[in-house]
Amino acid sequence: MEPPSSINLPLSLKTMYDIAEFILRSVELISPDQTEKMVDTLARFYENKGGKVLVMGAGRSGLVGRAFAMRLLHLGYNAYVLGETIVPAIRENDLAIAISGSGRTKLIVTAAEAAKDAKATLVALTSYYDSPLGRIADVVVEIPGRTKYSQNEDYFARQILGITEPLAPLGTLFEDTTQVFLDGIVAELMMRLKKTEEDLRRVHANIEL
Amino acid sequence: MEPPSSINLPLSLKTMYDIAEFILRSVELISPDQTEKMVDTLARFYENKGGKVLVMGAGRSGLVGRAFAMRLLHLGYNAYVLGETIVPAIRENDLAIAISGSGRTKLIVTAAEAAKDAKATLVALTSYYDSPLGRIADVVVEIPGRTKYSQNEDYFARQILGITEPLAPLGTLFEDTTQVFLDGIVAELMMRLKKTEEDLRRVHANIEL
Amino acid sequence: MEPPSSINLPLSLKTMYDIAEFILRSVELISPDQTEKMVDTLARFYENKGGKVLVMGAGRSGLVGRAFAMRLLHLGYNAYVLGETIVPAIRENDLAIAISGSGRTKLIVTAAEAAKDAKATLVALTSYYDSPLGRIADVVVEIPGRTKYSQNEDYFARQILGITEPLAPLGTLFEDTTQVFLDGIVAELMMRLKKTEEDLRRVHANIEL
Amino acid sequence: MEPPSSINLPLSLKTMYDIAEFILRSVELISPDQTEKMVDTLARFYENKGGKVLVMGAGRSGLVGRAFAMRLLHLGYNAYVLGETIVPAIRENDLAIAISGSGRTKLIVTAAEAAKDAKATLVALTSYYDSPLGRIADVVVEIPGRTKYSQNEDYFARQILGITEPLAPLGTLFEDTTQVFLDGIVAELMMRLKKTEEDLRRVHANIEL
Repeated sequence: MEPPSSINLPLSLKTMYDIAEFILRSVELISPDQTEKMVDTLARFYENKGGKVLVMGAGRSGLVGRAFAMRLLHLGYNAYVLGETIVPAIRENDLAIAISGSGRTKLIVTAAEAAKDAKATLVALTSYYDSPLGRIADVVVEIPGRTKYSQNEDYFARQILGITEPLAPLGTLFEDTTQVFLDGIVAELMMRLKKTEEDLRRVHANIEL
Repeated sequence: MEPPSSINLPLSLKTMYDIAEFILRSVELISPDQTEKMVDTLARFYENKGGKVLVMGAGRSGLVGRAFAMRLLHLGYNAYVLGETIVPAIRENDLAIAISGSGRTKLIVTAAEAAKDAKATLVALTSYYDSPLGRIADVVVEIPGRTKYSQNEDYFARQILGITEPLAPLGTLFEDTTQVFLDGIVAELMMRLKKTEEDLRRVHANIEL
Repeated sequence: MEPPSSINLPLSLKTMYDIAEFILRSVELISPDQTEKMVDTLARFYENKGGKVLVMGAGRSGLVGRAFAMRLLHLGYNAYVLGETIVPAIRENDLAIAISGSGRTKLIVTAAEAAKDAKATLVALTSYYDSPLGRIADVVVEIPGRTKYSQNEDYFARQILGITEPLAPLGTLFEDTTQVFLDGIVAELMMRLKKTEEDLRRVHANIEL
Repeated sequence: MEPPSSINLPLSLKTMYDIAEFILRSVELISPDQTEKMVDTLARFYENKGGKVLVMGAGRSGLVGRAFAMRLLHLGYNAYVLGETIVPAIRENDLAIAISGSGRTKLIVTAAEAAKDAKATLVALTSYYDSPLGRIADVVVEIPGRTKYSQNEDYFARQILGITEPLAPLGTLFEDTTQVFLDGIVAELMMRLKKTEEDLRRVHANIEL
């Protein structure tokens, strides 16, 4: 798809285009193997009816996690979000999903370590496989992005990826890419778990704030 | 950009590609005029130092609003989110930004009406200009999407837009498109308000959960 | 118990004393019958393992509801809080607990009506039996307080109760009294459900923000 | 005030009475000096118009903090709550208020240390003056309670206080006592800052979820 004529576009829409293109290119950079391991793990936990899924992320990554947790709930999971009022204890049969671009967000690494200590399975979404978060995870999915915490590493990552970055400050690229990636995961889970949109709608909150 | 070879891609990554392409195509469907009115309104409110910006959305649209409100805070705005603990009263010099794909989410329409009653300025992000939300807003930006509440209208909207939709349930397309659109708005506001990434980082929470 | 010598006490501690005394006096004003109906309803829902409990309240009453919902979770309930990310659909076998001093908080009345429409059981905690919330509830517990929305009614209520009010603005008295009342309910549920403190600790979040 | 006849009271109301009496007795155990230092600090920060107040607590202590932060907002403070979407960076002229019964809640101690590193003023509400939190705070107010983390210390504390404890699990007593204490602080701040209930109402959210 050709870029829209830049003459008439305000900077906001040009940047929107650049971010969308970054996400599009990311599809080829994300490992199908890593992705399938994540989907397999989630599908297996669906059978495990008593099991809980706890999604964890700080700041805007936490919001991306919440959006995914909502869909997990709609799919029939016992999904929870770290930082909400209602967070049950995590056990051996539970699944923790941690989101951190840098893989070093202190709070999320600490929470992920606690999940591992409780013998839960840990899935990590991060730009850095070899980060404190990536190293302790059972399943890692590497998501391209430029993270706010590690500019030097970012620089090399960018070189390697050959990506000219859009004007997107701090963790924006990782966050937006992860959001769309996770909505892709939702689509595959719908198929695997044989859920229709109507099934999701039935579990969707009927009293919503 | 050519679609990646579909042979090796799991459904999750195929859907990720489709959603990203939907967002990319949306750039040409969003009105530059509507967009500029939104940016102008936000830039004008930045001068108005005492003014508050209240972002409102339900469910996943609310999360998209929160991600935008965080960036508004980083840019130096007194930004607040409906539904959080800390929400001040809204007055004549304040700005409300309401996000609803259908433009009929009851709670958000009610909140938007209350903002108008308080004489605040109202910006609406919705797929439907002629919806209860769109009709009362001072500035409307139409964002493509398929919303969960109005399937018939969606059907026609889809015909008109000529968009073959990815496997994205409920409000996913509207939510993801709005998220990337708003990150484009952030880029333009950075330029208009002469803010560097370092400026944003300085306001970024240094104690983050 | 005698009031502490007021000579040495700052106004803050004097008011703390007055509020605590208000709560103490409220014990005799709360109907044991209404209370037992609430406990019976909760105990019955505990048996109903698939059933969900949704706690609803606005502003500070919402926070009181969250504190109670946490304990319900610790007791083994599938408890949820309106306004959080994770709120499942409410059905016939579910229980909604609505908290509103005035019984007329628009959002909570609307949510309570939605719960009734879904055929859920509704418990209301309010100062006004004959309020929009009280009238639609299956079980009402009247909790003394002075609410921010209905000053005239408050005036008469205060006359009838013969209570000299402490310096506690807006809904403070209702909120603090309800908080302590609900912690009393927790104690009785522990006994009824044969739960020890250790049982609660086991369900308590082991990864807490 | 005499205890109500226990013959007719269900265990829930008896426990409510016991908790209220615990709060009442606590008034005499809380140091007026510590209390006045907290009020003075808050009153001084009110003058400092650009200054922010960040309230921090985990679990139910966090909810108590939120209820207090709401009132600080109503009083005219720029109040924020750790864990919400909107949390600005904390600086030298800002105030952090940390709530932890044990004074050792890891997350809150870490957050309090970060606030001290940023040169903010730190007020701690805890049952243990000589705890990790108490030791780094500029102002400590000791609030009686039995905390969930340190049963041995609790035991001695209880002996010293001569308090027969009500059937209140985990941190309940500390949380409820702190809530009423903080509402006492609100009353004194109203007087000091010459705020009427009507002033509070004006700042109270007019669009509330």
